[in-house]
Amino acid sequence: MKKFVNKVDEILSESLTGFGNAHSDIIKVNLSPDYISRKLKPTNDKVSLISGGGSGHEPLHGGFVGHGMLDAACPGQVFSAPTPDQMEAASNEVFNGKGILFIVKNYSGDIMNFEMGADMISHDNKTIIVNDDVAVEDSTFTTGRRGVAGTMIVEKTVGSLAETGASLGECKVFGDHVNNMTGSMGVAFSSCTVPAAGKPTFELSGDEMEFGVGIHGEPGRKREKIKSANELTKEIIDTILEDLKPEKNQEVLLHVNGFGGTPLMELYLLFNSAQKLLENCNIKVSRSIVGNYTTSLEMAGGSFTITKLDQNITTHWDSKVHTSALRWKM
Amino acid sequence: MKKFVNKVDEILSESLTGFGNAHSDIIKVNLSPDYISRKLKPTNDKVSLISGGGSGHEPLHGGFVGHGMLDAACPGQVFSAPTPDQMEAASNEVFNGKGILFIVKNYSGDIMNFEMGADMISHDNKTIIVNDDVAVEDSTFTTGRRGVAGTMIVEKTVGSLAETGASLGECKVFGDHVNNMTGSMGVAFSSCTVPAAGKPTFELSGDEMEFGVGIHGEPGRKREKIKSANELTKEIIDTILEDLKPEKNQEVLLHVNGFGGTPLMELYLLFNSAQKLLENCNIKVSRSIVGNYTTSLEMAGGSFTITKLDQNITTHWDSKVHTSALRWKM
Repeated sequence: MKKFVNKVDEILSESLTGFGNAHSDIIKVNLSPDYISRKLKPTNDKVSLISGGGSGHEPLHGGFVGHGMLDAACPGQVFSAPTPDQMEAASNEVFNGKGILFIVKNYSGDIMNFEMGADMISHDNKTIIVNDDVAVEDSTFTTGRRGVAGTMIVEKTVGSLAETGASLGECKVFGDHVNNMTGSMGVAFSSCTVPAAGKPTFELSGDEMEFGVGIHGEPGRKREKIKSANELTKEIIDTILEDLKPEKNQEVLLHVNGFGGTPLMELYLLFNSAQKLLENCNIKVSRSIVGNYTTSLEMAGGSFTITKLDQNITTHWDSKVHTSALRWKM
Repeated sequence: MKKFVNKVDEILSESLTGFGNAHSDIIKVNLSPDYISRKLKPTNDKVSLISGGGSGHEPLHGGFVGHGMLDAACPGQVFSAPTPDQMEAASNEVFNGKGILFIVKNYSGDIMNFEMGADMISHDNKTIIVNDDVAVEDSTFTTGRRGVAGTMIVEKTVGSLAETGASLGECKVFGDHVNNMTGSMGVAFSSCTVPAAGKPTFELSGDEMEFGVGIHGEPGRKREKIKSANELTKEIIDTILEDLKPEKNQEVLLHVNGFGGTPLMELYLLFNSAQKLLENCNIKVSRSIVGNYTTSLEMAGGSFTITKLDQNITTHWDSKVHTSALRWKM
């Protein structure tokens, strides 16, 4: 296994310690139970946003802790749900007078453990379940659609609303709305290796791709020969648009996400393909973000996410954010 | 070849077009000749910083065009030097009253073409040659040491000084100083595939690493069995410190750079290993940056860069920067 590692069972704690020290101006890291929280407590009463999930998708979620986005993130072991005591401890640390909003990607283990965590706290709380992946209906670890790269967009926009002092109910409704306006789909050129397993999660031959892959290497819609960037982009964008059913002249946020092992050059090339396709359908790409935000360890491949924009979503996308992985209008 | 591509000879132009559209708030892209420049011209007279080099190292250099850093970047084809007409056109576009400062990584092709570009312009100009790689003295494409991930640190700090209205001579002296205070070394777990070649640049067996690798896959010091993160970090950090000869209690900037195919979790784990080692040597890591900044396409591996800090370098590292890939204090 070709990884930078000392002992497999210490990867998470060593990595979290490094993460905490590298960004000690923005976040702090608690170990046992593991959670990441903001260095500076907000000065106003606000809903506290807590996300989390298996590690291996960095910068999601810990990289999005900070002003304008999450209050805390609970990282599980690689591709494994965090445990309820993490959500309990993080909730007690970051409660700030207005309740706790959990943002959870739709995987059975995450849903169950976040529910148990929610039962362990005395604060008012609600949960947004993100299920933006239009590739498949049920999947290996999921009843219903999977939550993937659209989660970052939910975290950014609801994080912004929460900073304004909005109520727990308002944040929950808005988050569900952003999720409903968002669709994603990905493609893998390679597998990835979970350190504790020591071998690739799945095998792809030299000319194959997994179309509609999940972010843990779950099967997608089909396995087929690699196509040109324009061809596979068209197939994915068409699938997302069938789901989102945008009006003519709809403005959208287009997110091209790398899974970890694909060069930035290729992600920008994909962005170019997708933007041209969308504009040919009279859909205007008025906001964009390209890069490795929701990764699958070192998997080669990437995903497209489209969010239909309205005035509210645009305002909360554009607002100030200051995290280790997303920063603007600081 | 598993890449997102339409036609191999259009990768660069398609990718640049996507890059320009994705970040149209910060930069603009000119094609034929290819260069990236700031969207907004500086409002004060300042030295104009122009860098460039082969593509495939993104976000270096185009991702560093913007306030507080570069005025323009000239991307060559993948791992190939840009041509002199690119530097000429970029210089004429971004000249802003105080001369042109070229920042060039030490590769023979880059040096030659930047020199030819400099001869084609009428503006005063000087060149900083970055040669921070302590792994080997001469290399495949290089007389003397290679320029690698320390280039970003030179671009950030000299970019900051240039914003203050410093003279061309002052910027040149400061850039040479930052380069002298900086040392880097990397290790590769895998090769990468240049699209035009269609096959990996070199081969490594399943348990081998290339120690001291260059960012184009050039050979390093030795090829050996993979070691633990702590062991290989110690060997690299010791090598850099032998070169930099820091005093006791020296403050440093520690940069852990990913080559493109290594998960962020592992980079933070490396940061943790290196920070502990440095602090055991009474060297204080007072600034840090971790991530994929100087990549080698999809190569698995990474590098460490250490810059000895003095008051000037610290001030210019900390100052405002607003580019697509680096943003703080905006």
